[in-house]
Amino acid sequence: MSGEAKRRRSGGREAKHAARSRAPDHIAAWVDRKIPCFEVLDEEALQMIEHNADTVLEEIGIEFRDYPRALQLLKDAGADVDGERVRFPRGLCRAIVQQSAPREFTQHARNPERSVVIGGDRTVFVPAYGSPFVRDLDHGRRYATLEDFHNFVKLAYLSPSIHHSGGTVCEPVDIPVADRHLDMVYSHIRHSDKPFMGSVTHSSRAEDTVQMAKRVFGDDFVEQNTVITSLINANSPLTYDATMLGAATVYAEHNQATVISPFVLAGAMSPVTVVGTTTQILAEALAGMAYVQLVRPGAPVVFGSFASAVSLQSGAPTFGTPEPSLVMYVAGALARRLGVPFRSGGGLCGSKIPDAQAAYEAANTLQTSALSGVNFMLHTAGWLEGGLSMGYEKFVMDADQAGVLGVLLGGVDLSENGQAMDALREVGPGSHFLGSAHTYANFERAFYRSVVADNNSFEQWEGEGSLDTAQRANRIWKKMLRDYAPPPLDPAVDEALQDFMRNRKRELESWEQ
Amino acid sequence: MSGEAKRRRSGGREAKHAARSRAPDHIAAWVDRKIPCFEVLDEEALQMIEHNADTVLEEIGIEFRDYPRALQLLKDAGADVDGERVRFPRGLCRAIVQQSAPREFTQHARNPERSVVIGGDRTVFVPAYGSPFVRDLDHGRRYATLEDFHNFVKLAYLSPSIHHSGGTVCEPVDIPVADRHLDMVYSHIRHSDKPFMGSVTHSSRAEDTVQMAKRVFGDDFVEQNTVITSLINANSPLTYDATMLGAATVYAEHNQATVISPFVLAGAMSPVTVVGTTTQILAEALAGMAYVQLVRPGAPVVFGSFASAVSLQSGAPTFGTPEPSLVMYVAGALARRLGVPFRSGGGLCGSKIPDAQAAYEAANTLQTSALSGVNFMLHTAGWLEGGLSMGYEKFVMDADQAGVLGVLLGGVDLSENGQAMDALREVGPGSHFLGSAHTYANFERAFYRSVVADNNSFEQWEGEGSLDTAQRANRIWKKMLRDYAPPPLDPAVDEALQDFMRNRKRELESWEQ
Repeated sequence: MSGEAKRRRSGGREAKHAARSRAPDHIAAWVDRKIPCFEVLDEEALQMIEHNADTVLEEIGIEFRDYPRALQLLKDAGADVDGERVRFPRGLCRAIVQQSAPREFTQHARNPERSVVIGGDRTVFVPAYGSPFVRDLDHGRRYATLEDFHNFVKLAYLSPSIHHSGGTVCEPVDIPVADRHLDMVYSHIRHSDKPFMGSVTHSSRAEDTVQMAKRVFGDDFVEQNTVITSLINANSPLTYDATMLGAATVYAEHNQATVISPFVLAGAMSPVTVVGTTTQILAEALAGMAYVQLVRPGAPVVFGSFASAVSLQSGAPTFGTPEPSLVMYVAGALARRLGVPFRSGGGLCGSKIPDAQAAYEAANTLQTSALSGVNFMLHTAGWLEGGLSMGYEKFVMDADQAGVLGVLLGGVDLSENGQAMDALREVGPGSHFLGSAHTYANFERAFYRSVVADNNSFEQWEGEGSLDTAQRANRIWKKMLRDYAPPPLDPAVDEALQDFMRNRKRELESWEQ
Repeated sequence: MSGEAKRRRSGGREAKHAARSRAPDHIAAWVDRKIPCFEVLDEEALQMIEHNADTVLEEIGIEFRDYPRALQLLKDAGADVDGERVRFPRGLCRAIVQQSAPREFTQHARNPERSVVIGGDRTVFVPAYGSPFVRDLDHGRRYATLEDFHNFVKLAYLSPSIHHSGGTVCEPVDIPVADRHLDMVYSHIRHSDKPFMGSVTHSSRAEDTVQMAKRVFGDDFVEQNTVITSLINANSPLTYDATMLGAATVYAEHNQATVISPFVLAGAMSPVTVVGTTTQILAEALAGMAYVQLVRPGAPVVFGSFASAVSLQSGAPTFGTPEPSLVMYVAGALARRLGVPFRSGGGLCGSKIPDAQAAYEAANTLQTSALSGVNFMLHTAGWLEGGLSMGYEKFVMDADQAGVLGVLLGGVDLSENGQAMDALREVGPGSHFLGSAHTYANFERAFYRSVVADNNSFEQWEGEGSLDTAQRANRIWKKMLRDYAPPPLDPAVDEALQDFMRNRKRELESWEQ
């Protein structure tokens, strides 16, 4: 399935209604990047970082905590295991990863037209992940609920430039922790037909995620294909814990994808320098991905890198600053050299509200993400306050920027129409192109149209109430949710999912008592 | 003089006071770019655009209106002149430019430490230019006055990441049009010691600018060096008018620099495609720069490109969108191939206020400007509302972003300290780097510190009044203006300038009567 193909279904009134309230059918399932990645370092410098990462793996090693199975597998593969500290002969992790990890993979969605290919020249935009709070203009900042979760799943479903439903789009804190993962996975399946991420907070929850996916896709299909991509964070520096290893193991065993992500605030969890930080990230990612390949060779892995910086004055995390941009460019190059998909970036910001700081920082990070070759762009839309809050208005704004990036990555049309020599000949000096045949022929698709920006005259803007961007975005998400209609779901599948959830919740409650 | 050199003057109480109220002495005079430029097109595609531009110059030609001297000079150089339409044999413009235009040049400031080198791997950040309105949070949008003009000159002077005082930082509409250029040039000289731009609205005003510069730098120095860089816009498509040609001619005759800038809103003044637009821009810039080289071979010229897009729905200009970003990347590559400095980009936006739209759009354009290799970044700070308004808060925000870009362009430290292997060895798995010797040693300069961003906790931010970015920026510019102290200016020079202005104003008034 090509991300470029325009898929238009049969017309008529019904189709029109569907187009209004469901995710548009004709959108691309991902972005095909047609411009190069931006390389800030040359071959020699990248080799130096790879050499240094191997030194870290060899001399310092990685701790795999409270998870004996990992120690055994790594020892069997040739690593030096000393207690929970695992040291790797030079090149071992790279060899393991390159032997079996796919360069790219398809994550199937329950609607095959929304399946995504992750890796290569493709970019997949994914909502932000993990915030306990939500924020909107009407109610300010508050703890997230399951209703908020549903809302963000619906907004991602309806956003033409968001290709993926994400995972913990916010933490539904009104649901017991033990049950939460079931409701979240169900929400992704019920309210969207885009691909989704699974639970990683316990191996049993990863197993539940796989079981629910099997009720949608069928048992055999799940074991042979990838239908879940999940986020596995390293405990930087240089540590993996049992929770993440347990979840990664379950997903790998079922051939499901994991994003192996060092989570780094440079200065606190990594050195304060770009090279030091990327060296550590490479070492951590290599070790984690190698472990996954040992669990099940060929299970998809993504080289993840979440790297920002702390303020060395206050200790607060900062976003949209230049040093993490440089880290991202370097990490992307390292992932390409390794030959696995790359995850990083998104619409990161430290601002508490969807104001100018939020937008400068998000745009800086989004631009960098696009040009650094990110394949799986977690946190594309909604991120506020260093990830503590998921913003309704911010989601709409960022999703609009994802559209900007899609066009940027689409590159330059070199065709005869793109060269426009006839237009130049037709118009000539001192005239204008608005009425030219070439402009008319390219009218519909010539320029990206923002849904949030106001480009009217000052007087018109003032006459319409002098709304700022957040106020316009507020109207947009409310209209989206008002008009939302769920994608069709086979009632038998729905029933099977609800059965599974009921049973599991009963079991989990009885365990708790 | 190196942009890297840290220039610290003698200490003591007086120096401390100066540091508080004057532009810091130790800042770099420009940014040295140490990362590559981002190339979106390959050799073959760039050659095609150069070929097409030559076709435009050969077949369609450029109109040089109401300026017979240009027609004569171009004819003498081998162009085919038909009325006011000038057609160029293939390669002629390129040959003329490459024969004498400098690859880079020094624009001297009256404080030699603030002289800038324009071209090569250097980036010079310049304030926004040309808005009739100003905006601040206290008084909203209003016509600009000379006081506003002074204020923006002072703010640019005090901003460590703004290297240049700019030109028409806003239009002082409270001053008669005939006198305005004198007050503007004087303001740059009196309130700043950074380099500045000259008047281009009439050849006599360009001459006045040169005369005033001579009173600062001396007659001979001005004729042998460059102390003014001025903005010459083409009347796109494919036209130069007498006003701009007249000003360009005066500046070139005096060896002063001109930025030859096609000003394009694609869809209106150029084709709707990236290649069509860059083809036209190259043709226009080549013809303009060739003319300047014929006036005085070796007079510095900058390849300018102001390109945005119109909304094909409303006709309104739009900013921060992906197509103009692609144009900028391509135009930058074309300028490098030609071998002249490049001007483009800045903090462009369509928003009326310094909100999220303003920031997304500005950041998109600023990032692109940095990576596309812009040397002279006009409009770096202050731009609002498609250039109709100069924003006080926006200026502070954008200047802060210029600092972000400076660090980004500074690239990656590959030294042993940058590699941080000792830090990785010292800290090891599961600990943290905040107290490590390496962090401590690099504490001061490790990360860019934004002056506008708030990265405190939500609770702290709320406790401090829940200010948004614009409100924080409002406090910053007010404090800057409160604390401002003018750079020293030789009283004899000042007197000579004021004499000149008095005499000229008298002459101009008598002409008007």
